[in-house]
Amino acid sequence: MAQVIADRRDVDFVLHEQFQVGDLSKHEIFAEFNKKVVDMVITEARNLAVKEILPTQKVGDEVGCKYANNEVTTPDEYKRAWDLLAEGEWMALARDPEVGGQGMPETLALAATTYFTGGNMAFMLCIGLTHGAARLIENFGTDEQKAMYLKNMYTGKWTGTMLLTEADAGSDLGALTTTAVKNSDGSYSITGNKIFISSGEHDLTENIIHPVLARIEGAPEGSRGISLFLVPKYFINDDGSLGDRNDVYCTGIEEKMGIHGSPTCSISLGSKGNCKGWLLGKENKGLSQMFLMMNEERLMVGGQSLSCASSSYLYALEFARTRVQSAALGSKDKKPATIINHPDIRRMLLTQKMYVEGMRSLVFYVANCEDRARTTESVEEKEKFANLVDILIPICKGYVSDRAVDMCSLGIQVFGGYGYTSDYPVEQLMRDVRICPIYEGTNGIQAMDLLGRKLGMKKGQLLTDLMDEIKKSVASAKEIETLRDLAEKVAGAAEMMREAAAHLGKTASDGEIQKAFAHACPFMDIVGDVTMAWMLLWRATLAGQKLEKGAKKKDRPFYEGQLKSAEFFVRSVLPVTLGRIASVTDTCGAAVEIDADAFGGK
Amino acid sequence: MAQVIADRRDVDFVLHEQFQVGDLSKHEIFAEFNKKVVDMVITEARNLAVKEILPTQKVGDEVGCKYANNEVTTPDEYKRAWDLLAEGEWMALARDPEVGGQGMPETLALAATTYFTGGNMAFMLCIGLTHGAARLIENFGTDEQKAMYLKNMYTGKWTGTMLLTEADAGSDLGALTTTAVKNSDGSYSITGNKIFISSGEHDLTENIIHPVLARIEGAPEGSRGISLFLVPKYFINDDGSLGDRNDVYCTGIEEKMGIHGSPTCSISLGSKGNCKGWLLGKENKGLSQMFLMMNEERLMVGGQSLSCASSSYLYALEFARTRVQSAALGSKDKKPATIINHPDIRRMLLTQKMYVEGMRSLVFYVANCEDRARTTESVEEKEKFANLVDILIPICKGYVSDRAVDMCSLGIQVFGGYGYTSDYPVEQLMRDVRICPIYEGTNGIQAMDLLGRKLGMKKGQLLTDLMDEIKKSVASAKEIETLRDLAEKVAGAAEMMREAAAHLGKTASDGEIQKAFAHACPFMDIVGDVTMAWMLLWRATLAGQKLEKGAKKKDRPFYEGQLKSAEFFVRSVLPVTLGRIASVTDTCGAAVEIDADAFGGK
Repeated sequence: MAQVIADRRDVDFVLHEQFQVGDLSKHEIFAEFNKKVVDMVITEARNLAVKEILPTQKVGDEVGCKYANNEVTTPDEYKRAWDLLAEGEWMALARDPEVGGQGMPETLALAATTYFTGGNMAFMLCIGLTHGAARLIENFGTDEQKAMYLKNMYTGKWTGTMLLTEADAGSDLGALTTTAVKNSDGSYSITGNKIFISSGEHDLTENIIHPVLARIEGAPEGSRGISLFLVPKYFINDDGSLGDRNDVYCTGIEEKMGIHGSPTCSISLGSKGNCKGWLLGKENKGLSQMFLMMNEERLMVGGQSLSCASSSYLYALEFARTRVQSAALGSKDKKPATIINHPDIRRMLLTQKMYVEGMRSLVFYVANCEDRARTTESVEEKEKFANLVDILIPICKGYVSDRAVDMCSLGIQVFGGYGYTSDYPVEQLMRDVRICPIYEGTNGIQAMDLLGRKLGMKKGQLLTDLMDEIKKSVASAKEIETLRDLAEKVAGAAEMMREAAAHLGKTASDGEIQKAFAHACPFMDIVGDVTMAWMLLWRATLAGQKLEKGAKKKDRPFYEGQLKSAEFFVRSVLPVTLGRIASVTDTCGAAVEIDADAFGGK
Repeated sequence: MAQVIADRRDVDFVLHEQFQVGDLSKHEIFAEFNKKVVDMVITEARNLAVKEILPTQKVGDEVGCKYANNEVTTPDEYKRAWDLLAEGEWMALARDPEVGGQGMPETLALAATTYFTGGNMAFMLCIGLTHGAARLIENFGTDEQKAMYLKNMYTGKWTGTMLLTEADAGSDLGALTTTAVKNSDGSYSITGNKIFISSGEHDLTENIIHPVLARIEGAPEGSRGISLFLVPKYFINDDGSLGDRNDVYCTGIEEKMGIHGSPTCSISLGSKGNCKGWLLGKENKGLSQMFLMMNEERLMVGGQSLSCASSSYLYALEFARTRVQSAALGSKDKKPATIINHPDIRRMLLTQKMYVEGMRSLVFYVANCEDRARTTESVEEKEKFANLVDILIPICKGYVSDRAVDMCSLGIQVFGGYGYTSDYPVEQLMRDVRICPIYEGTNGIQAMDLLGRKLGMKKGQLLTDLMDEIKKSVASAKEIETLRDLAEKVAGAAEMMREAAAHLGKTASDGEIQKAFAHACPFMDIVGDVTMAWMLLWRATLAGQKLEKGAKKKDRPFYEGQLKSAEFFVRSVLPVTLGRIASVTDTCGAAVEIDADAFGGK
């Protein structure tokens, strides 16, 4: 039977052959996660995803979430899936067992979670954000707060959210107006209105914990005066039982393009004058605390993007293998063939395949760098892995989500007219994944983070570390005769990427900051393309080594497919990347120079 | 107030300054359409589109069309809009007044219609297809058939459809199985099932005329045995009144990603053994007759794509002008600014602007070539214009629709989170426009048409004619000092495009046809990019001339905006195009060489 969500062979390849995730078990913190256990976890996650979560995807889209009287009803089918995830302890895989987690490596946790997310991204969003909220408490909470919240959140008894955005404070959180006034008992009275709150209200759990960004009376203006508060839906008694209802209410949910199965809530805090919250961490440090969690959230979006693209690819592939239409070009018998025989269909499928593979490697790689940073004894290595994570996060979030939208669109195109109908899941995947370039910092913000922050950090060390890793892969690839030419092309593109980075940096520091940043997004595309090429070359090198050593017959098509992915990317995408480098290096200023009136429309 | 749908200044620029559409009135067939009349027509069309059609767009999406008991109900709001379009005689603008049309130039008709389509693409689809069906009758019908159908269809009293696709015959129409058996009275009994029939059933008019592709008993297999039949929903009596119900029934409508306001019907012919149709044109010539109409249908899709992209741009522009968020980069007072001040927003807006402008020029240009072909006395010119239409149709349909999807996605991105919600129309526009790369021949089919048919026709004369026109524009541009460099870059890219075409042609004829066609879509992108660059350079040249002569103050921003569009396209997109040319010229064979099993997923 055709596989769905993710190709297991490829997941195993990345986990074991590319990143040797089983080796992490040599370190005591991951001692129980040897290769055998890793495989068991993936097998179980995949079963659960395919049998229990995937069936909620369409109903989540079609029935969606319903709002009435401050309450949100999720589809009935969600409850069973939620309970199974909670009972199976799948909700906090990489967290410390002491606080309700499983203590897994991040790499493994991500691999398992991308199966779930591919089953129903909208549904899994609630768990992802719960995780993020609990992480804030884990990092910045008092012991009392940790004891009160962590276990209940990591085990799926309660959920968590993120109350950041307001109607006039989106990308610019510093503009928020929600206020906090200190009470005599040490709590704060919170007043304000938040929007775009994923899972801000629902009927899956008995309590919901809202971390809220607000400004304490008298705090500085802008981003330096923002604090973080914990606002539970129901107060929690000293014995851990639930108390009265807090004055935090959902006032509506958004109608939107996709992720209908995730309620996007407007939340009113203190509309009856009675919303209580407790400071989390330090006064006026709310934004910086929140941003410490950003890597995790953004990696999650990369994982969602990968999941949707991977699902779309497998559906398109299966359709192309079964749909009969027209004879193959140049066929002698003129007999109608399955459409996988048509060159343009093959172009689309191989394009999906190589991006999905490259994205999977990249997203898992970043998680793996986190694991390596934790397990290495070397201070230099720790720093290097942290640097790699920091420079690759905007690529994981920004570049990967942009390409995921493209790949989900290609999935529709392979289906032709059928792909546009709701009879197949590919149109939903494209609508769902379209949120990924927007939330957790728009991709424009990601590109600015890459160009404006990450390139300049530690005197450029992050990019140097990335280049060094690419060079290592290039050197390994060159040892395989058939990959030498591809490897040289990847090395050349990486070098030109570095020059483009230097050029844009100089442009910005020479007083043309606006002009430089008008090219931030194309520059992010360049780094993304080079990163994809690197990952695919790395994969091809491993595959080439296996083939040279005489891989088993059943493994040969997979390894040969790795060579084809790398060849196709390097020969058909990298030349376009070089064109983009030329464009960015030319640094046309038209976008910033054009008079606002010249855009027309008045 | 902000403009919607299309920027009137730009529409006027293309009609009058770029194509001098008023000059067509020098020819007797267009005598009444001088500049003043052209302007009046556009003003009226725009009013109707904005005031009456645009308000049906959201309800068409949200309420959509309902199916029950073989009948389809459209939203109530559609009836008024339909009647206004019929009463105002807007349904067949370019057709002969003798058969119910207005006798307008195609250029003007298209300009007016793109306003309507921008108002509600789904709604207008019914009129577009009626037009196509009537054109078939006009071209291939007997005098009796023309008298029976044409006027009623062109005036919107009846509508028309196209019954082509079957469940197993989509891109491969030759595989269709609907049959026709001749009756003693000269009619045919038709039996079969069709799918994906836009407006196949609805409640807007009293009759629906279905041109149906079917195979006459004993006809050859495949595409050479297909004939075209007229199957009316209600039979027509000799006095023109409606008779009995024909046995052609809607059996359901599709749930789909977008164009919810257009019913996509499954149609059953002869399920009760009593469906009657009449041959249209010649036996076994159904497909070739149908394909003679393809240029018109595909140009319509280009117009739809343009309309959606143009609407999305104007919404995004207005949002960017009013939404305040963050201080401008490098701002000294750090005061929050409207987002049109942020460089990445400007990049997105200028990208939308230049593509919308280039698409508008291209789509109108093709219509204009049709008008010029009709009005010129010169046989050579007639052929040249026909050649330009033929080579540019796949670009109008394929390239323009692909870029329109991208531009509608950018429109969402400018809005950020708001763009993903149904509070703004941009998410609907992206869902609606996503059908354009699929229907009327997928974009893969367009790319094959360009590479496999159009390039080879008349020993390559079509491409030569296109190159000649580009060269003329380049020569004019070079007379303006500031455009010389851009003009040379466009000329260089065009020359490399020609070389890439020759290379792919040689690859195909050297026995590597599969490999060549795996690059058909990227090649179409190349021709599309070069065509955009040409159109934008042409526009900039006209703008430059006006500015040199001292344009009025109120016109200066518009003309300066033209220079910026051309500069931005040539300097930031054309380098990427050159990269794509390098990729196509390298002609990687991985997509056709990869073993089918190596795609994985099993």
